[in-house]
Amino acid sequence: MKIAIVGGTGKEGRGLALRWARAGHEVSVGSRDAERAREKAAELSGLGFGKVTGGGNAEVAAAAEVVLLSIPYGAHTETLKELRDALQGKIVIDITVPVVPPKVTQVQLPAGQSAALEAQEILGPGVRLVAGLHHISSAHLADPEHALESDALVCGDDAAARETVIGLVGQLGLRGLDAGVLRNAIALESLTPVLLHMNKKYKGHAGVKIVGLGS
Amino acid sequence: MKIAIVGGTGKEGRGLALRWARAGHEVSVGSRDAERAREKAAELSGLGFGKVTGGGNAEVAAAAEVVLLSIPYGAHTETLKELRDALQGKIVIDITVPVVPPKVTQVQLPAGQSAALEAQEILGPGVRLVAGLHHISSAHLADPEHALESDALVCGDDAAARETVIGLVGQLGLRGLDAGVLRNAIALESLTPVLLHMNKKYKGHAGVKIVGLGS
Repeated sequence: MKIAIVGGTGKEGRGLALRWARAGHEVSVGSRDAERAREKAAELSGLGFGKVTGGGNAEVAAAAEVVLLSIPYGAHTETLKELRDALQGKIVIDITVPVVPPKVTQVQLPAGQSAALEAQEILGPGVRLVAGLHHISSAHLADPEHALESDALVCGDDAAARETVIGLVGQLGLRGLDAGVLRNAIALESLTPVLLHMNKKYKGHAGVKIVGLGS
Repeated sequence: MKIAIVGGTGKEGRGLALRWARAGHEVSVGSRDAERAREKAAELSGLGFGKVTGGGNAEVAAAAEVVLLSIPYGAHTETLKELRDALQGKIVIDITVPVVPPKVTQVQLPAGQSAALEAQEILGPGVRLVAGLHHISSAHLADPEHALESDALVCGDDAAARETVIGLVGQLGLRGLDAGVLRNAIALESLTPVLLHMNKKYKGHAGVKIVGLGS
């Protein structure tokens, strides 16, 4: 599958790109600075997990079937407005957590209650938005050999898109679980400050595992 | 410790009362109908886990050091207003999840963003409110021999009250974890509809376990 990672030159993008390239996907990393993205792509390709290409955010998004947004909440609205046209017709995975520094260990709901709901509002009904991967340590993800213990809770209003993304997160080495409709992103996003509080209190990289499911 | 369970004649109250009585606490179950509470208390005492007493909600609340609210969200505001005086000076544990039937598998934030924040607003600063136990299956809890796999995430603005409650949930047979300030109840409460969605989708009694914490 052709997967683009918008804002893909950071730590989160590294892990996602390497793990999906290893699974056989055609992965592109995007950046505002296309040249920087191409350099990062060459570096990632050189690690031997599979070929990764790079380019401007709109360019990589337009060429992909699935686009993952790896951008800070502060740049969320602006980036989505810029990419609105390039994203039409695609499955978009939003992993954004609306934390507002410095109080990152306290839930602070955004105006639209969740970043994912705000994204769907900006992008319109032509985009199948799926939210997930809010609780995965980017440090653990970035090391392609690190076994991931957390589950990836995935929500969205389009059940088929949700299933596609659950399959894709499985190929990252995570158990993907169906978390229901897009507005359930309120729960998923707001759990991250709680995990950040626990990281501080108990030390570590807190993640979430769902127990008690039937087989 | 003297623990009162307001609305304690239901399934949730049964498990809490039996498990805390077994741990040596003086447990009272309350109801709007004092006679019904006394009958339920006699029944629970007869099971041999320890003595449980019963009475009207205000009566058991006033006599306790820690009061747990086990009431449906529909009766939350009214009950808190009635018990406001009886609860002053106490640690109050609010386990309420603001689900609004029939859409119980979708996050629906209440007007005050969380039931616990609404409770603190009604009860005022003289009550140390702690929220928790939103993700524990009442069926599993009700059987005192059932080993509980889920963690209990506990939040509140008073750190000492939070620690007391973390200790108390430990005596129920759960690992209690510090989930930070009271407004983090937004995350804890809203995760329950997600778990209810998973129960439906995957069958089972979904619970949450936090992984990756330091020792």
